[in-house]
Parts: sequence; structure tokens; C-alpha cells
Amino acid sequence: MAERLVVSADKLRHFIRDLFVAKGMPAPDATTVAEVLVWANLRGVDTHGVSRAPSYLAWFDRGDLNPRAALRITTDTPAAVVIDADRAAGPVAMTRAMAEAVTRARSIAVGMAFVRATTHTGALGYYARQAAEQGFVGIAMSASSALMAYHGARAAGVSTAPIAIGVPGGASGAIVFDMSPGLVSMGRLAQARRSGESLQPGLALDRAGNPTTDPAAAAIPLPLGGPKGSGLALMV
Amino acid sequence: MAERLVVSADKLRHFIRDLFVAKGMPAPDATTVAEVLVWANLRGVDTHGVSRAPSYLAWFDRGDLNPRAALRITTDTPAAVVIDADRAAGPVAMTRAMAEAVTRARSIAVGMAFVRATTHTGALGYYARQAAEQGFVGIAMSASSALMAYHGARAAGVSTAPIAIGVPGGASGAIVFDMSPGLVSMGRLAQARRSGESLQPGLALDRAGNPTTDPAAAAIPLPLGGPKGSGLALMV
Repeated sequence: MAERLVVSADKLRHFIRDLFVAKGMPAPDATTVAEVLVWANLRGVDTHGVSRAPSYLAWFDRGDLNPRAALRITTDTPAAVVIDADRAAGPVAMTRAMAEAVTRARSIAVGMAFVRATTHTGALGYYARQAAEQGFVGIAMSASSALMAYHGARAAGVSTAPIAIGVPGGASGAIVFDMSPGLVSMGRLAQARRSGESLQPGLALDRAGNPTTDPAAAAIPLPLGGPKGSGLALMV
Repeated sequence: MAERLVVSADKLRHFIRDLFVAKGMPAPDATTVAEVLVWANLRGVDTHGVSRAPSYLAWFDRGDLNPRAALRITTDTPAAVVIDADRAAGPVAMTRAMAEAVTRARSIAVGMAFVRATTHTGALGYYARQAAEQGFVGIAMSASSALMAYHGARAAGVSTAPIAIGVPGGASGAIVFDMSPGLVSMGRLAQARRSGESLQPGLALDRAGNPTTDPAAAAIPLPLGGPKGSGLALMV
């Protein structure tokens, strides 16, 4: 068990921001990344919080994440926009995309933004909430490479395909719902690997496609509700 | 067990159309209703097929379903439309709504239609497919009165909130996914009541909020994946 350390959210945000600035990211973008990661921790979703920072930093070194990405709109209609994110950090690309969608919704009731060439999105709920706090219903979805087993399959064939929906909640703030059609997230598997904690039966397969509860072996999440979670993931 | 009778899809469509015409519905609208109901049967979803016709007909007699509904657009933007369906049959209102959405998507990439004052929608997959066959991703959702138990609750608190997604499938036709966040549909409960067949454990509650497998007592579907199905239904 690692030593326990308590830090304030603000301190953590500044620390994370400084890590990204040190890699050459402009301060406003680094602030966005820190804000989205710490938001996930504050919401109790530690799997999508600052524990992701080391992989983000490793992606800079491998050239997979571009600290000075130049986001570019490649398709633009009054209702929809396609953004080429130039390998930006997911939070930078996604907050920009939701802002473009909200601008369009403000004028014609609906706005949609698609992002390509982005990296790990972080906690999707953040972007759904971003719209909800401006008075709109916000829906955010994300597809990844094949990570989850399709119903009945023994290898990864579909994305874990998270979906978040936010609605304005009046005086008590936005209501945000954020789920994946998987029974367990990749972040949760990584967390179990680190802590050594066993998984509940029926959540995941090992690389050979066999059911496992061993945190060191679990690699492929199984879908929620068999065909339902599988189909939803395929469609997302 | 009722006597077994085999009829062709065309004969069944004509029979259903004639039933609705006899109630005063214009032939084109009655044809739409028959087409949507028989489509569900052909897809194997008998719970949403012609077995629904008797309740539709009863709704005419009660005044809940208007055979000569005058659909009216109450809000209109380049991307979105709100239709007051004047208590039209669900298939009449929903095919019109999807047609309006597709027209808008054709010009600015996204189109959305909301329908109010409609009746039972039938199999939502039909409308998602309607968009997919015209080259668009079609999403159809429907909210009902509170029918399903929220995770942990013992009374109906949320809609069974079906969701259908259709995508163009090239030469092999549209791919349509159609699900409810409930473990069992209201139509499936009605089917079990008629057949007297026991339900699997864990699918439904009786009116008093107790788990049951008795088809005569089962009244409230339980949500798929507890909080996930509940939250999705709440948001829809």
C-alpha cells in the first residue's frame, strides 16, 4: 500500500497544469487538462482522474500527443462541425468541440461536433456537463480501438464506447449521467492491476479469452447485458 | 394454446390496414401503421407487432387515439422541429418526424424532431432504419409514463425508455440496433400473461414491489445493470 497523501483540489490542479506546461503545452490548454482530470477525482471516478497523467506524459515523449496542437475545423455547417484535433490532449479537443456544439445549438436548437485525431478523452461527463450548465442537453460519446469483447466473443472486438448525458438541473446544478456499456472500464482494470485487488467474477477475460478474476491477467472487459451492451458499443 | 394460423406478411398488412380504415383512419395512415406493426413481427419482435392492434383499436373507442389527427409543426429551425401529433397513431407521428429530421440532415448534416401528443410508438427500430436507408445515422428514442423501477426502488419510477440506432450498411442494407434499458419489456410481460409462461427470476416486480416470476403478477420491469439502465432511462 502506497503512503497516503492528502492534497487540495486546487493544489492538485496547479501541479498537473505545471507538469503539462513543462512538456511545452500552453498554459490555458494545460489548465483545461488539469481541470478535467481533477474533476473526475472530485466526482469519485479516480480511474479517469490524475492517475492518467503519467500515460499522457508518456504519449508526449512517444509523439502520440501534441502539446502545441493546432485544432482545425474541416467541415462546418450551421448545425455541425468536424474538428481535426492534430493529436491534442482529449480535454482540449473535447471542450472546444462542445463549445462549438453549444454555439450552434444556441442559434438553431441543435449542434453537433465530431472530433478526429484526438487522444484519450478523460471523463466524458465533464463535456456533457459543460453543455448542461449553459442550458442545453449535452450528449458526449467516444469510440476507442477494440478493447471490449462482443457478446459471446473471446477477444476484444468493440470499443468500451462511453456515453455521457447532461441536462440542466435548475438551482441544484446540472444532472450528469456517465456510463460505458462495459461491465468494467479499462481504467478500473489498470487500478486493480496496481492495487492487486481481485475482480468480481464475470467482469473480464484474460488475453487468451478465458474468464478471470486475477487483476494481473484481466485484460478485456465484458459487455453489460450481453447483446445490449455489445450492440450499443458497436453503434457508438 | 390458441390454434396456429399461418398468414403471409402482405395479407396481414392488408388485414391490419382495413381494421384501422374501418375506425375512420385515412388509408395512407392505416397503411403506415400496418407496415410498422408487421415489420416488428417479421423482425421477430412479436411483442411490438400486430398483437398491439387490439389496444390501438380500444384507444380509438376511448378517444385516446385520433384516427384523423392533424399533425402540426409548432417549432421549426433549420436543424430541429417540434411536432404536435394531435393524438395520432405512433407510427404515423414517428415516420413523419423522422422524415422531417432526414430533410434537415440532408441540408445541414443534422436534423432532429421532437413529437408530443403521440401514442404508442411501436418498434422504434423501424424509424432508425428509415433514416439509415436514406444514408443517415438514425437515432430514435421514446419516453413513456413511469413503468420501470429505478435501481433499488420497489415501484415504477422511470420510463422503459427504448433507444434505437440505425446506420447505413451498404449493399447488405441498414444495420439496426434496438434496445430498452429494461431487462424485460411491457410487451413481453403482456405476452407472458397471455401464454402463462413463467418469467426468469430477477426480471420483474409485482404491483406490491416484490420480485416475482409469476406471469400473472409481474407488472414492473427491472433495469438492466442496476444504476446504468436506470440512469439511461432517466436521461432518455
